[in-house]
Amino acid sequence: MATVEWDAGAGGVRLIDQTRLPTEETYVVCRTAAEVAAAIRDMVVRGAPAIGAAAGYGTALAAREGRLAEGVALIRAARPTARDLFWAVERVEHAADPLEEAHRVARESIEACQEIGRHGAALLAPRARIVTICNTGALAAVDYGTGLGVIRAAHEQGGEPFVYALETRPRAQGARLTTWELRRLGIPHRLIADGAAGLLLQRGMVDAAISGADRVCANGDVVNKVGTYPLALLCREHGVPFYVAAPCSTIDDATPDGAAVVIEERSADEVTTFAPPGTEAWNPAFDVTPAHLVTALITERGVER
Amino acid sequence: MATVEWDAGAGGVRLIDQTRLPTEETYVVCRTAAEVAAAIRDMVVRGAPAIGAAAGYGTALAAREGRLAEGVALIRAARPTARDLFWAVERVEHAADPLEEAHRVARESIEACQEIGRHGAALLAPRARIVTICNTGALAAVDYGTGLGVIRAAHEQGGEPFVYALETRPRAQGARLTTWELRRLGIPHRLIADGAAGLLLQRGMVDAAISGADRVCANGDVVNKVGTYPLALLCREHGVPFYVAAPCSTIDDATPDGAAVVIEERSADEVTTFAPPGTEAWNPAFDVTPAHLVTALITERGVER
Repeated sequence: MATVEWDAGAGGVRLIDQTRLPTEETYVVCRTAAEVAAAIRDMVVRGAPAIGAAAGYGTALAAREGRLAEGVALIRAARPTARDLFWAVERVEHAADPLEEAHRVARESIEACQEIGRHGAALLAPRARIVTICNTGALAAVDYGTGLGVIRAAHEQGGEPFVYALETRPRAQGARLTTWELRRLGIPHRLIADGAAGLLLQRGMVDAAISGADRVCANGDVVNKVGTYPLALLCREHGVPFYVAAPCSTIDDATPDGAAVVIEERSADEVTTFAPPGTEAWNPAFDVTPAHLVTALITERGVER
Repeated sequence: MATVEWDAGAGGVRLIDQTRLPTEETYVVCRTAAEVAAAIRDMVVRGAPAIGAAAGYGTALAAREGRLAEGVALIRAARPTARDLFWAVERVEHAADPLEEAHRVARESIEACQEIGRHGAALLAPRARIVTICNTGALAAVDYGTGLGVIRAAHEQGGEPFVYALETRPRAQGARLTTWELRRLGIPHRLIADGAAGLLLQRGMVDAAISGADRVCANGDVVNKVGTYPLALLCREHGVPFYVAAPCSTIDDATPDGAAVVIEERSADEVTTFAPPGTEAWNPAFDVTPAHLVTALITERGVER
């Protein structure tokens, strides 16, 4: 399985369709920048590093189409929050060989995740019990993963991590994607409702929380999947470390703090799954975890406390 | 609509089937204590005061069957956490006229909710924006409701409350039941994912939280729907009052604190809605909000800070 991969034969970027997992493992090929933008917007591809790699290829496709400015505009408008999208577009749009640069973005992303895994695994006790939110695995990156990459590295090194995966409503990436990845990796886990994180921490059932990030601000504030902030607050209350695992491409020195970040609001119908028809909903996709709640940021460069 | 009502013609207690709402409004009649116990266990009836009233009628049915001890044992085993169940059974099983006592339990429950509403509404600003968890409305009681009763009273007094209703996974009582009730009452509201409570508080979008309770311990700890504790913690962090609305029948002086309460763990399949087949889950139904996070307890006797 590759989350984001260039398909030379098809002349486009091949994405595993994450809206269909875990029910179906299907792939789509995007041959234009517009198709890549749509795949990002509709969350066929999601997870900050994976969005970044897809956006890189989308920019290369825009260049190939001879409509760079137009294609880049579409991609930049697809989703507002993940820093990696803008970072990858900026790298590729100014490159002499855009496709080669997009390949480089994707390759470096995998290497960064492996380094994140190595640095992060060193923080975990051999039988660490870890709570996760959303999906931060291979599906959220080009491969290997960020937060789940840390857990995967611990597992590969012979540790015996155990994961409590938050469901992560409304799109249930924890239930749909994280459990699917953990089973493939052979890492034992239990799914829990988002609200159950309180009792989990209260009862001392976890040793650490590891989240990913969509944007890390200059002051260290972390913008990530909605529900991350309550989890971080619970961790502080119970003296449990709250780690954020993200490549440096997620760090945005141009954004001073979380208050300056545009929080994407998505369609109400993602939330109204169980509600009477016509129910109105508020559906922000992200929240802000203040820097002081983050025990350490794990990047490919090391552990920053 | 009556949540719990004696049906003299049918010779049993009539319950609105809350597992089918909001899709269907159907009723079931329980004519034996065993049927009442099953309805409580399967959450046809839920919400501490509603469970209490149903348990009272179930006990009266057990007495009518001439198998009081056996019937009471079934009812007591149906769900372990809500105090009202045990309180109602104890009242009815020792009464000279069990059915009359069960009627009294149900009547007093409605009166208590109306008083709770009156006391609680006085705490709210005219256009208070309130976040709720689970369902604490007429469906959670015999009628009127506890937490939602407060909001209803504010609305009836001409205030203009606005409600953010947490979905409340895994059983989604907020999405299924609270929105359904609020629409019938004409109270404006938005549904939000449980994880979105963090951003809601962060952005200063609410003036108060109001929850119900399944058991209030002697020290003031509140056992309520899983997810209540994280919400209370967020409220403290952001200086927003966290109110608990419950009748005195929910107060359990015999239980010193939350640590002494049996937290019901329900079937994994309530949580695995979106997960791959075979996924394991941990599904606790309640958590403990420590007394120090509760701004005030609103009962029929008044507001206790």
